[in-house]
Amino acid sequence: MGMVGGGQGAFIGAVHRIAAAIDQKIDLVAGAFSSTPEKSKASGKELLIADERCYGTFEEMLNAEAALPADQRIDFISIVTPNHMHFPPAKLALEKGFHVLSDKPACFDLQQSKDLKGIIDASGKLYGLTHNYTGYPMVKQARDMVAAGDLGEIRKIVVEYPQGWLATRIEAEGAKQAEWRTDPKRSGAAGCMGDIGTHAENLAEYITGLKIKELLADLTAFVDGRLLDDDGNVLLRFENGAKGVLHASQISVGVENNLSIRIYGEKAGLEWHQVEPNTLTVTWLEGPAEIWRAGQGYLGANATNACRTPAGHPEGYLEAFANIYKNFAGHILAVEAGETPSDLVMDYPKIDDGIRGMAFIEAVVHSSAQGAAWTPLGA
Amino acid sequence: MGMVGGGQGAFIGAVHRIAAAIDQKIDLVAGAFSSTPEKSKASGKELLIADERCYGTFEEMLNAEAALPADQRIDFISIVTPNHMHFPPAKLALEKGFHVLSDKPACFDLQQSKDLKGIIDASGKLYGLTHNYTGYPMVKQARDMVAAGDLGEIRKIVVEYPQGWLATRIEAEGAKQAEWRTDPKRSGAAGCMGDIGTHAENLAEYITGLKIKELLADLTAFVDGRLLDDDGNVLLRFENGAKGVLHASQISVGVENNLSIRIYGEKAGLEWHQVEPNTLTVTWLEGPAEIWRAGQGYLGANATNACRTPAGHPEGYLEAFANIYKNFAGHILAVEAGETPSDLVMDYPKIDDGIRGMAFIEAVVHSSAQGAAWTPLGA
Amino acid sequence: MGMVGGGQGAFIGAVHRIAAAIDQKIDLVAGAFSSTPEKSKASGKELLIADERCYGTFEEMLNAEAALPADQRIDFISIVTPNHMHFPPAKLALEKGFHVLSDKPACFDLQQSKDLKGIIDASGKLYGLTHNYTGYPMVKQARDMVAAGDLGEIRKIVVEYPQGWLATRIEAEGAKQAEWRTDPKRSGAAGCMGDIGTHAENLAEYITGLKIKELLADLTAFVDGRLLDDDGNVLLRFENGAKGVLHASQISVGVENNLSIRIYGEKAGLEWHQVEPNTLTVTWLEGPAEIWRAGQGYLGANATNACRTPAGHPEGYLEAFANIYKNFAGHILAVEAGETPSDLVMDYPKIDDGIRGMAFIEAVVHSSAQGAAWTPLGA
Amino acid sequence: MGMVGGGQGAFIGAVHRIAAAIDQKIDLVAGAFSSTPEKSKASGKELLIADERCYGTFEEMLNAEAALPADQRIDFISIVTPNHMHFPPAKLALEKGFHVLSDKPACFDLQQSKDLKGIIDASGKLYGLTHNYTGYPMVKQARDMVAAGDLGEIRKIVVEYPQGWLATRIEAEGAKQAEWRTDPKRSGAAGCMGDIGTHAENLAEYITGLKIKELLADLTAFVDGRLLDDDGNVLLRFENGAKGVLHASQISVGVENNLSIRIYGEKAGLEWHQVEPNTLTVTWLEGPAEIWRAGQGYLGANATNACRTPAGHPEGYLEAFANIYKNFAGHILAVEAGETPSDLVMDYPKIDDGIRGMAFIEAVVHSSAQGAAWTPLGA
Repeated sequence: MGMVGGGQGAFIGAVHRIAAAIDQKIDLVAGAFSSTPEKSKASGKELLIADERCYGTFEEMLNAEAALPADQRIDFISIVTPNHMHFPPAKLALEKGFHVLSDKPACFDLQQSKDLKGIIDASGKLYGLTHNYTGYPMVKQARDMVAAGDLGEIRKIVVEYPQGWLATRIEAEGAKQAEWRTDPKRSGAAGCMGDIGTHAENLAEYITGLKIKELLADLTAFVDGRLLDDDGNVLLRFENGAKGVLHASQISVGVENNLSIRIYGEKAGLEWHQVEPNTLTVTWLEGPAEIWRAGQGYLGANATNACRTPAGHPEGYLEAFANIYKNFAGHILAVEAGETPSDLVMDYPKIDDGIRGMAFIEAVVHSSAQGAAWTPLGA
Repeated sequence: MGMVGGGQGAFIGAVHRIAAAIDQKIDLVAGAFSSTPEKSKASGKELLIADERCYGTFEEMLNAEAALPADQRIDFISIVTPNHMHFPPAKLALEKGFHVLSDKPACFDLQQSKDLKGIIDASGKLYGLTHNYTGYPMVKQARDMVAAGDLGEIRKIVVEYPQGWLATRIEAEGAKQAEWRTDPKRSGAAGCMGDIGTHAENLAEYITGLKIKELLADLTAFVDGRLLDDDGNVLLRFENGAKGVLHASQISVGVENNLSIRIYGEKAGLEWHQVEPNTLTVTWLEGPAEIWRAGQGYLGANATNACRTPAGHPEGYLEAFANIYKNFAGHILAVEAGETPSDLVMDYPKIDDGIRGMAFIEAVVHSSAQGAAWTPLGA
Repeated sequence: MGMVGGGQGAFIGAVHRIAAAIDQKIDLVAGAFSSTPEKSKASGKELLIADERCYGTFEEMLNAEAALPADQRIDFISIVTPNHMHFPPAKLALEKGFHVLSDKPACFDLQQSKDLKGIIDASGKLYGLTHNYTGYPMVKQARDMVAAGDLGEIRKIVVEYPQGWLATRIEAEGAKQAEWRTDPKRSGAAGCMGDIGTHAENLAEYITGLKIKELLADLTAFVDGRLLDDDGNVLLRFENGAKGVLHASQISVGVENNLSIRIYGEKAGLEWHQVEPNTLTVTWLEGPAEIWRAGQGYLGANATNACRTPAGHPEGYLEAFANIYKNFAGHILAVEAGETPSDLVMDYPKIDDGIRGMAFIEAVVHSSAQGAAWTPLGA
Repeated sequence: MGMVGGGQGAFIGAVHRIAAAIDQKIDLVAGAFSSTPEKSKASGKELLIADERCYGTFEEMLNAEAALPADQRIDFISIVTPNHMHFPPAKLALEKGFHVLSDKPACFDLQQSKDLKGIIDASGKLYGLTHNYTGYPMVKQARDMVAAGDLGEIRKIVVEYPQGWLATRIEAEGAKQAEWRTDPKRSGAAGCMGDIGTHAENLAEYITGLKIKELLADLTAFVDGRLLDDDGNVLLRFENGAKGVLHASQISVGVENNLSIRIYGEKAGLEWHQVEPNTLTVTWLEGPAEIWRAGQGYLGANATNACRTPAGHPEGYLEAFANIYKNFAGHILAVEAGETPSDLVMDYPKIDDGIRGMAFIEAVVHSSAQGAAWTPLGA
C-alpha cells in the first residue's frame, strides 16, 4: 500500500501502519507522507521505504505508481491526513485505478461524500473507512446478537464518547493534534462531533442495524476562543421507534477515550466500553447478567474472525484497527482473484457509512444552530 | 414517629422504618398503615405497635395523637404512601403541629407543592423529603468538593437513572409496586420521570449547587398499554451556562437501579455510581485519577457525618436513607431544644427541593408534549 | 438485650447496636458498657438506656437482670469487649440463664472455647458468634450453590483478607483499636491471624462446608516493635483433598478491608469480594461468566432471607451483621415459643465455629513457630 | 528473522510473528516451522516466506542461512517450540553466530539453562526470553516506582496466575496445546508451574528487583490421569525479608488468564492485573488510591517507551509481547552498529531470567515432593 499523510509526529498515521502490519499481509511500500517533499522523504526513510517511492505529493505518488507495472505498483492507498484532505487523494486514487482506505470522517462535508460515492461507483474500486471501533470483536458480537433477535425489538440506545484532552485551549499552545481538529478550515463544520461524535453515531447504527431517523442537538464550545464545538448532547429517534441519547465531549476533564454503548431491546440488553473492549455485558429479563469475553469459543463467526488470541490475552485498539485493514485487504484479494468475497471480509465500513457520518455532522450542526430543532438524518 | 402508609407488602415503608431505626434515636410508635383499619392494625401488630396507636386513617391518627399529652404524642409523621396521598396527610399534620418527613415526589403536582410550602411556612414546623440518594457519603463529598471550587466552573453534567423492572407490563399482572406507579391517578403526570427522573434531577442540583434553567425532553411509553412514560431523554441547560444530559428509564432490561452522575468542571471531574456508592472517582487535568472512598479520614465533615463505619465496611442504600432521618431528627431536636441547628443536621432535602422536583416533572411532560421544546424550569 | 463493652469510642459496639436495631425486633435496654461505672453510665445515657440499667460491671448486670421478673429482664447479652474478655461474661451469662451473642474470636485460646462449649451445652441456652461476613446474602448464596453440587467436587480455595491500617506502629500513638489488637495479653496468641485470619478461615469453611484438615503458616510482624503477627501466609489442605491458600495482612498499605474468596470445583467457580458484597461471580466450564446479584428473584431461600431491599439497592456491612442478630433472635423466639426453629434462623455461627477459629489461631501460630510445618486443624 | 516451530495450528508461533511485525522493523524471512519438511513448507507458504527459505529442520535452516552472505542471512532466530526443543536450536544458532530469542521457559531443566548461559557467553551473541508479561507498560512503571523507592522497603508480595482451561482432561481429547504441556517428556518437571508459574515468579522478581531466597510449595495434579501438576500454592521468602504468596492454577474453572500482582512496601502499594493491563493502582499510607494509566504523560521513560498510543486506546497482550521484540531488536541494532545500547532497549528478559525460572521449577517440584519443605532458590 501507499500512504497519504502520516509523516513524523502524526498520531493516526502510525496507528494505520501498525494496523496494516499486524497481520503480515500488507506491505507499506510507498508514501506521500507530508506536505513537503523533504519531510516526506525523511519520514519515508525512517519507515524503511525505498527513497524513490517517497513522494512529494499524493498526485506525484499516484501518477508514478500508476505508471509502474501492475505487479509492482501499490494496490491501495491509505489516507491519514486531516479531514479537508480526505477527498482529493481518494478521488484521484480511484480515478487512477487504486482502491482506497480512508480515515474518517469520509470527507469535509456531506456533498463531497455523496460525490465520492459516485466516483467510487464509477471506478469499480473498493473504498473502506476506518471507523475502527467497529473492528472490536465484542462490537461484532453485539451486532450479531442484535441481528439474531436475541434482544428483541430495540427500544433504547445510549451511546457516549467523552474525552478530556481539549479541556484547555491546547490548540493555542502548539498541540498539533488539537490545532487542525479545532480549525474549521481543516476539520469541517464540527469539532468534537466530527472527530468523535461520528464514531458514536457509526457504532450505534453498526451494532443495531437501525438508522437514526431524526435528531436534535445542543453543541457548545466551552473553551474560550475555540472555533468549533468541544461538547455536544444529542437526542436520537430511530426509524423503528427506538429512542436514544448520544453525547460526546472533549472537555470531560481527566476522561481518556471512553466510547461506550448500551442497547436495550424488549428481551435483553447489551453494554460495551471501549476502554475495556474485550467484555460485552449481556442482561436479560430474568436471570443473571452475563459477561461475554473476546476469544471465547462461544462467540459467533464475525467476532471470532476478529480475535487473534484466546480469551484472557487482551486485544486492544490496534488489533481492532487492524481488523478493518484485514477485512479490506481480504476483500481486495477476493475481488482481484475474481472470487465472491465472504461475508467475513465484507465486514468493514464503506462509503455509505461515510455518508451517514457526514450527514450526522451536518444534522447536529444544523439542529444546534436552530436551538436544538428536530432534524432529519436522511442521507 | 407515626407512619402514614407502609402496610404489609409495601416496599418503601419497610425501608423508612429501617432508616428510622438504624440510629436508635427514633421510635415508631403509631401508624395509619393501610387504607382499612383492619389492615392497618394487622400491619401495626407485626411492627410491635401498641394496638391503640394503630389507626384506621391518617386523620384519625393525627387527631388522636394531637390529643395526647405533649410528651407522649409523636413528634413527626413519616409519609410513605403513593404520590397522590402525599399532600393530604402532610397538610393536616402540619396544621396539627407535627413535623413531616415525606417520601418523594413531594406532591401530586407542582401547584400542590407550592401550596404545601405555604402551609409549612405558616405552621412553623419542619418538613423533610426523602430524596435518599443525597444521603450517601460520597454524594455529600462531591457536593462539598464542588462548593469548595475543586472542579472550577462546572461545564458538563451527565446524570442517568436506568432501571429495567418495567420492561414488560407487570402492572397488569398484579405487581403492586408497578400498579400505582403507572397509574396517572396515583402517580401524577409522569411515570418514570416522576419516580426516578426526579431523583436524577435532585442529585444533579444537590451536588453542583446549580439550578437547571431550561430543559427539553423526549418521553416515551414503550410498553404497550402503559399510560405513563417508562423512558425519557432530557437535555439540560444550567443557569451558569453548563450543559447536561439526564436520561432515565424503566425499560433498560436487566439493569437494576443504576443512578449515576458525572460532573466536569474546568479543573476536575467527578463520577459516582449508586450501585457502588462508597467510591467517588476524581479526575484531574493532569495526573492520575483518584479513588475517594467512604469512611476514609480525608473526607470532609458532611461525608464523615454520613458514615457509620470505617472505610472498607460498605455502607449502602439503607444507611444513606437513614442519613435523611438522622439529620431531620437532629434538626427537630435542635429546634425543640431552642438551639441553632448545625450545618450538618440541616443537610437534608426540604420543600424547595420538592418544588424543584414537581417543576421538573411538569417541565419534562410539557416539553415532550411540545415535541421536545425548550421549557424553563423556573420554580 | 444487654451489652457488655461498647462504651464511648469503641468501634464494634456501635456496629452491634446498629445491627441489633435494624430489624426493630431487639431492644437494647441494659449494659455494662465500660470498665468503670461512671463511663458505663455516661455511655448508657447517650444510648438512651435507663440509668438504673447502666451497670458498672457485667457481673452486676447479670445478677441484677436475673433478679428481675422474667418478662422484664434481658433475653440475651451481646459481648463486644476485647478478646480476653469474651469468655468471662459468656460463662456467667449462660450460667445465669441468658443467651449469649459474642464477638469473635470466641475466646482467648482454644481450651477456653472448648470449656465454653461445655458450659453452653450444660446451660441449654443459645450461643451465637458474630462472624459477620457470613451474614452477606451472596455468601449464603455461594454456600447453597456449593451444597447443591453446582460446582462439583471442590478443588481449590483462595481466601484472603488484606488490610493496611497497621502498616505503621499506630498502637504506640494512641490508636485504641490498634492497642488491644496488638497486645498479646488482650488479643491472644495471634494478631492479624486472630483478628481477621479467623474470618477468612470461617468464610472458607462456611461456604464450602469443608473442614481444613491441615495447614502450614508463615507469620510475620513487619512493623518494628510489634508483638504479634501483622501478616501471614497459609497453605491449606481440606479433608476432601482440596487445596487452598489463605493470606491475611494488616500491612498491605492503602488496602481497606478486602476480604475475598474464590472457590473452584470440577464444574464451576465462585468469586466474592467483601468490598462489593452484592455481587457473586459464577464461572463455568463453558459459556459466559454470570453476575449473580443480591436482591434478585433467582436467589435461594437463605440469600433472599438475608436481603432487605430489591436488587440495585446496595446492602452492606451493617445489614450483613444484622443478619446474624436477626437469625439469632429468630432462634431465641422459636425456642422460647417451644417451636422447632426453621433452617433459615438456624443459619448463624455458633460455638463450633468459634472452636474452629480458636484451633485455627493455635495451628497457624504453632506451624509458623515450627518454620511452617504442616499442622493438623483437628478441633 | 528465522523461526523455529510455529507451524500451522500452533498458538504461540502466531503470537511471536505478530509481535515481531507490529513495529515494522523485523522481517520474518525464513523458518523451520514444523517437524516435517512438507508441513514446514506449507506453513511457510501461508506466511509468504520464500519457498527456498522454508526449511525442514532447524539444523538445515541454520546451516543454510549461515552460508548466505552476511547482508542476506537472518539476524536472529525465534524459538517457539515446546520446552524440550528450546535448548537444541538455541545452542546451534548461537554457535553459528545468530542471536536467539526464545519462548519461555528457557530450557528443559536447570542444568541445561546453565549450560546455555555458558554457550551464550562464549558466542558473544544476544539471547532474549519472551517473559512477555514484563513487556506491559504498567509493569515497567511498577518496576520503576519500586526502584525509585516510592514504596519504601518491600514487605509483601502476592502474585497469582489462575487459569481454567485444563480443568478437564482435554489432553486426552486431542487438544494440541494441552498435550505437550502435560507431557513430562516435552514440558519438563512441572506442568502448571513451568507453563505459568514461571511467569508469576519472573513478574515478581522483575518488578521488585528482589530475589526469592527460599520457597515452599504444594503442587497437585487434580485431573485424573494427568502426569504433571495443574495447580500449585507456594510461599515465598525474599532476600530482603519480604514475604510472599505465589499461586498458579490451570483448573480454576472459567478463569481466563488472570495473572496479577500486588506489592506492598512501607509507604505504598501497587496492584496490577493482566486482564486489564493498562491500569496500575497505587495505594498510599494516606490519601486516595490512584489509577495510573498506560499512555499518560506522567509515566516514566520505560513505560512510555512501551506505549504506542495515547491513554484510552487500550494496548494488550500482543503489544506487550512486541515490546520484547522491539527492545531485543533495538539491542541487536545497537550492538551491530557498534553503539552502546540504551537502558531502554536493554529492558528485556535474558538468560539470567531464564535460569531463575528453571531454578524456580526445580525448587517447587523438589519442595512439593518433600511435603512442602523450605527450599532455597539459589540459582
